[in-house]
Amino acid sequence: MVKRVSLWDAGCPVARALDVIGDWWSLLIIRDAFDGVRRFNEFQTGLGIAKGMLATRLRDLTERGILETAPASDGSAYKEYVLTEKGRGLFLVIVALRQWGEDHLYGPDEPRSSLIAAETGAPVARLELHAGDGRVLTWDDTEVIKINPI
Amino acid sequence: MVKRVSLWDAGCPVARALDVIGDWWSLLIIRDAFDGVRRFNEFQTGLGIAKGMLATRLRDLTERGILETAPASDGSAYKEYVLTEKGRGLFLVIVALRQWGEDHLYGPDEPRSSLIAAETGAPVARLELHAGDGRVLTWDDTEVIKINPI
Repeated sequence: MVKRVSLWDAGCPVARALDVIGDWWSLLIIRDAFDGVRRFNEFQTGLGIAKGMLATRLRDLTERGILETAPASDGSAYKEYVLTEKGRGLFLVIVALRQWGEDHLYGPDEPRSSLIAAETGAPVARLELHAGDGRVLTWDDTEVIKINPI
Repeated sequence: MVKRVSLWDAGCPVARALDVIGDWWSLLIIRDAFDGVRRFNEFQTGLGIAKGMLATRLRDLTERGILETAPASDGSAYKEYVLTEKGRGLFLVIVALRQWGEDHLYGPDEPRSSLIAAETGAPVARLELHAGDGRVLTWDDTEVIKINPI
């Protein structure tokens, strides 16, 4: 991922997270990996991404510990890409993007995919941020304490 | 934001969300807006982004209804950028990125900023995904129902 500047050294976990996965294609690859896509050709067909671009992204994501390679599940010679534990930790990032998209980017009757609980088939609940004591917090109930206040 | 291909037409809310905000700089601008940054020069200094790049991102985010301009809060001639309701809806995306960064990208003693409940000063709780009946769901308890299954 080509960057003009790296914010890795920033004391902000958001900046550091984006330094690692803040690329449109990378997040779509991660989304597809959650949906069970495992092979180069499957990613390529699903995303319509150029092969070189996909190869670079898969390599970067593997080097960064988000994906790892595994032998093909059907015993063939294909290499497969699966999410590591660190990669699976991105699940709520994908869910938060999904719920915001559902809220703001679709017309009322426009068809879209939905995320359900596998066991019941019912839609998942909305994400909520809670305080330690259980109260629901909105953005203006919170504050960021920086390590280098200006 | 230059894209090789648009996934706007996809029936996937994640793809559509990334089509609108899936750019490293845009998400950092949105993060700063949540932290109270409002003016061009403040964004520029904080991010170390080139002015032309910042101007493009601010224009795109405004056109997409994430930011809106407002008269300067101190009565000066400066224009300020504030999050719209749609923009504020991205709060949990930023929180999810933050919590993943905290979990996976910092050493145990490495200093970093933290998100607290303003009223109590205590750290916020972790985001969790729940089923409609309240059970906590991990990624493999869920399934995406697509509108165009292949």
